[in-house]
Amino acid sequence: MKKLMLLTVLVFASTLVCAAEPLPSWNDGPARDRILEFVRSVTDEKGPDFVEPGARIATFDNDGTLWLEYPLYTQMVFALDRVRELAPLHPEWATTQPFKAVLAGNLEKVAESGIEGLMEIIMATHAGMAAEEYEKIAATWLKSKKNDRFGRLYSELIYQPMVELLDYLRANEFKTFIVSGGGIAFMRPISETAYGIPPDQVVGSRIKTEYMVRDGKGVLVRKPEIGFIDDKAGKPVGIHEHIGRRPILAVGNSDGDFEMVEYTTSGEGRRLGVFIHHTDSEREYAYDRESKVGRLSRALDEADERGWLIVDMKDDWKVIWPGGE
Amino acid sequence: MKKLMLLTVLVFASTLVCAAEPLPSWNDGPARDRILEFVRSVTDEKGPDFVEPGARIATFDNDGTLWLEYPLYTQMVFALDRVRELAPLHPEWATTQPFKAVLAGNLEKVAESGIEGLMEIIMATHAGMAAEEYEKIAATWLKSKKNDRFGRLYSELIYQPMVELLDYLRANEFKTFIVSGGGIAFMRPISETAYGIPPDQVVGSRIKTEYMVRDGKGVLVRKPEIGFIDDKAGKPVGIHEHIGRRPILAVGNSDGDFEMVEYTTSGEGRRLGVFIHHTDSEREYAYDRESKVGRLSRALDEADERGWLIVDMKDDWKVIWPGGE
Repeated sequence: MKKLMLLTVLVFASTLVCAAEPLPSWNDGPARDRILEFVRSVTDEKGPDFVEPGARIATFDNDGTLWLEYPLYTQMVFALDRVRELAPLHPEWATTQPFKAVLAGNLEKVAESGIEGLMEIIMATHAGMAAEEYEKIAATWLKSKKNDRFGRLYSELIYQPMVELLDYLRANEFKTFIVSGGGIAFMRPISETAYGIPPDQVVGSRIKTEYMVRDGKGVLVRKPEIGFIDDKAGKPVGIHEHIGRRPILAVGNSDGDFEMVEYTTSGEGRRLGVFIHHTDSEREYAYDRESKVGRLSRALDEADERGWLIVDMKDDWKVIWPGGE
Repeated sequence: MKKLMLLTVLVFASTLVCAAEPLPSWNDGPARDRILEFVRSVTDEKGPDFVEPGARIATFDNDGTLWLEYPLYTQMVFALDRVRELAPLHPEWATTQPFKAVLAGNLEKVAESGIEGLMEIIMATHAGMAAEEYEKIAATWLKSKKNDRFGRLYSELIYQPMVELLDYLRANEFKTFIVSGGGIAFMRPISETAYGIPPDQVVGSRIKTEYMVRDGKGVLVRKPEIGFIDDKAGKPVGIHEHIGRRPILAVGNSDGDFEMVEYTTSGEGRRLGVFIHHTDSEREYAYDRESKVGRLSRALDEADERGWLIVDMKDDWKVIWPGGE
């Protein structure tokens, strides 16, 4: 009899554990409800919307969706740091734009150099070394560079409610992927520790790499040449090439994610498209239609008619960063 | 006491199950021993060669390594069938090479058209439709087309010892990938059922796709243009782009896999490079240095000095196909 009681207690306790409230950093409200209802519906074996675990593909933009992007993409902050670090090896930068402006700390002048200037900065700082060497440089920077406003490491400027959403989806047998306009090799060194997403589940923009044998060892060398831009209509292409299945859930935060979410919600059966709206100037930033970084306009206009969910960071999230701030 | 005995029996039984002999279709011998020893060494937490589960990446060529490739790549057999099927829509093929030769069943003449001719056949049969439509066509063909010599469906012309090796590696927390010169979209529809490898863990050659909105739905359309050739020095590049980590185990069967295996075994720590040698003209085929399909020459010459394992299909495999033949 005692044993039976013990067993009852154990079963009851484990039920309690399983029933722990998911998404604790999300406020009670329609956004959280809608996500929970969606996951319930596609995992209910007896329901009409059931999706086999293998087809539960969820894709997430990174900049502004999983980590900070404002007022300057994290990868751009990294690139500018790299210019300063590499400057002694490039005396010509003292007199050549856009490098001269970077070294003078004149970001407006850097911005004036346009896409071409930014590309020059990326190529000068992201190419020319072995892939494994670049990964070490990126990982070291992400784990040691602090952001001025938040006093946090860049690797910790990730959104706690999104980390919980990723965990919750995986607990419901979703396979989670990053699909970002950012550099694939820049995100991979911390995707596992930051988000629980292994490197092979990261899709992103990339420069070309070339296989070479150096001192008898095979290495991949990064070339100063664009390989693929994983943004806008490139996102469905990147998803198709890397993942090979249409997602059933996609989350973004800018018009650069429009096509990814459109592609996702164009499929048969239950689908969910989500945009994170940056509305919290106190705890993070508020920006959308007029922003040069993470511009969100068309998706905001069309979300209602397309049935996409807009998450309001200020209203829907209890905390922004891990640790509860 | 009775309960204790029952428990003992249960524990003992489960130990037996766990200790069931792995790789049952492999003959006892140095090849099997070497694979088992490698897996033991990288999974032994206390040993000097331990590798964390997340880094246990294993890559497999497909044609001639996981499924039949001789005397004609399976995808080429498919392409020729497609030419015959589509011929009524292309009256011009009756008078244009290489299509005319295909329709006349003159494979030698087809071969004379060279790489350009083969590309024309591939583009005419693999492009122009939505990605999801192509996948259905490929899946249907693979599950219904029988091979003349073996009287088996092409989807079942896979090597049983390799299926067991994939299972065994996954049971030891390896993540298994296909890295093939074949078309990525041709393999994906059956990779899960044939090998237990989900579509996102398939790397292959690809044609370009373009995102379009048709009748309000986002679709990917296959373009008649090469996107990436995942062969030779392209294999390490494909591995880097898709997987983002250097494998610790790679298996191929031809010189097209040389760079993949070289890249794999160039890494730090314990690594294993394997080539499957087609030596069994009775149960399958015997071919290597002189073959136009799956040519194996340089890797055969250098295997010893590089420490790569050559698996002899005739001597090392008890059976070739699933079901025990």
